[in-house]
Amino acid sequence: MSEAILLQAKPLTQENFAAFGDVIEAGMSEPIMINEGTTERFHALSEVQLGSAEDKAIISIFRAQPRSFPMSIQMLERHPLGSQSFHPLSQEPYLVLVADAVEQPSAEHLHLFLATAQQGVNYHKGTWHHPLLALNAVSDFLVVDRAGKGHNCEEITLNQDIEIPLDYLIQGEGSST
Amino acid sequence: MSEAILLQAKPLTQENFAAFGDVIEAGMSEPIMINEGTTERFHALSEVQLGSAEDKAIISIFRAQPRSFPMSIQMLERHPLGSQSFHPLSQEPYLVLVADAVEQPSAEHLHLFLATAQQGVNYHKGTWHHPLLALNAVSDFLVVDRAGKGHNCEEITLNQDIEIPLDYLIQGEGSST
Repeated sequence: MSEAILLQAKPLTQENFAAFGDVIEAGMSEPIMINEGTTERFHALSEVQLGSAEDKAIISIFRAQPRSFPMSIQMLERHPLGSQSFHPLSQEPYLVLVADAVEQPSAEHLHLFLATAQQGVNYHKGTWHHPLLALNAVSDFLVVDRAGKGHNCEEITLNQDIEIPLDYLIQGEGSST
Repeated sequence: MSEAILLQAKPLTQENFAAFGDVIEAGMSEPIMINEGTTERFHALSEVQLGSAEDKAIISIFRAQPRSFPMSIQMLERHPLGSQSFHPLSQEPYLVLVADAVEQPSAEHLHLFLATAQQGVNYHKGTWHHPLLALNAVSDFLVVDRAGKGHNCEEITLNQDIEIPLDYLIQGEGSST
């Protein structure tokens, strides 16, 4: 075994993700009844952030290959000019890896979450995050992000030996990395 | 049997829906490879339309009860200040009912489509459409639409006896209403 720093995931909640973005999930708030009572609207679970009045919000689909574990974590990226949301379409859970808002994140700034197949995330403008970490199967995600002029993707290389282990979920309460 | 005008659905395609909005579906265009080859990005399948620079694009979840058929169609609505997209999250097909851009649509202006569980739609600004028509089961949809000042929902009552029959899909080519 290497002496890699191991990351372990917590279940994703609105509260533990609030510093990084929004969790997009039905049933966490009171819905509005619409369409003559046939539809519940869980309204404005998140907002698309843009950089300027000329920017557009666009809708794309990302098709992600599942990752293999243990997995070495080498880099993060951030989008300074807009938010970026991911919503799972393939009934598969996935991992969400983000970092605190520092210029050069190191292991102690990283936060790994396990999202259920019913939970989307919207990274706030500028939130450091790892590219999609699909699990189990090829997984599609509906992505809402920003299109427009200017450079909207910054990448950073991590300077430590950091790994998501095979058993990436913290088992039970009180466990730690 | 009543003498209702019966609507029958065609399978939804980019081409037959183009006058009303976009179909949001992976695999219909060449993807861009991103994330070091681990992800295919089907880029900008649709764009969120807003009414003014102060408007926001928001992300909501709609939870729709399944409809019963035959179903009487009484009304349509449109959103003059923004697009509205629906993406199925529950692995269920659904119906999409839209009308041509006239002030008082009648039966000959209506177009009914059967969307697969892998197809989202984005109604262009101002497109007449019926509220969600879920099939089979309670169905969640990710919705991206516009929030802001001003009145963004117009409704119209249809003046004819119009019905979606129990067997709403046109069987095979060459069938008609």
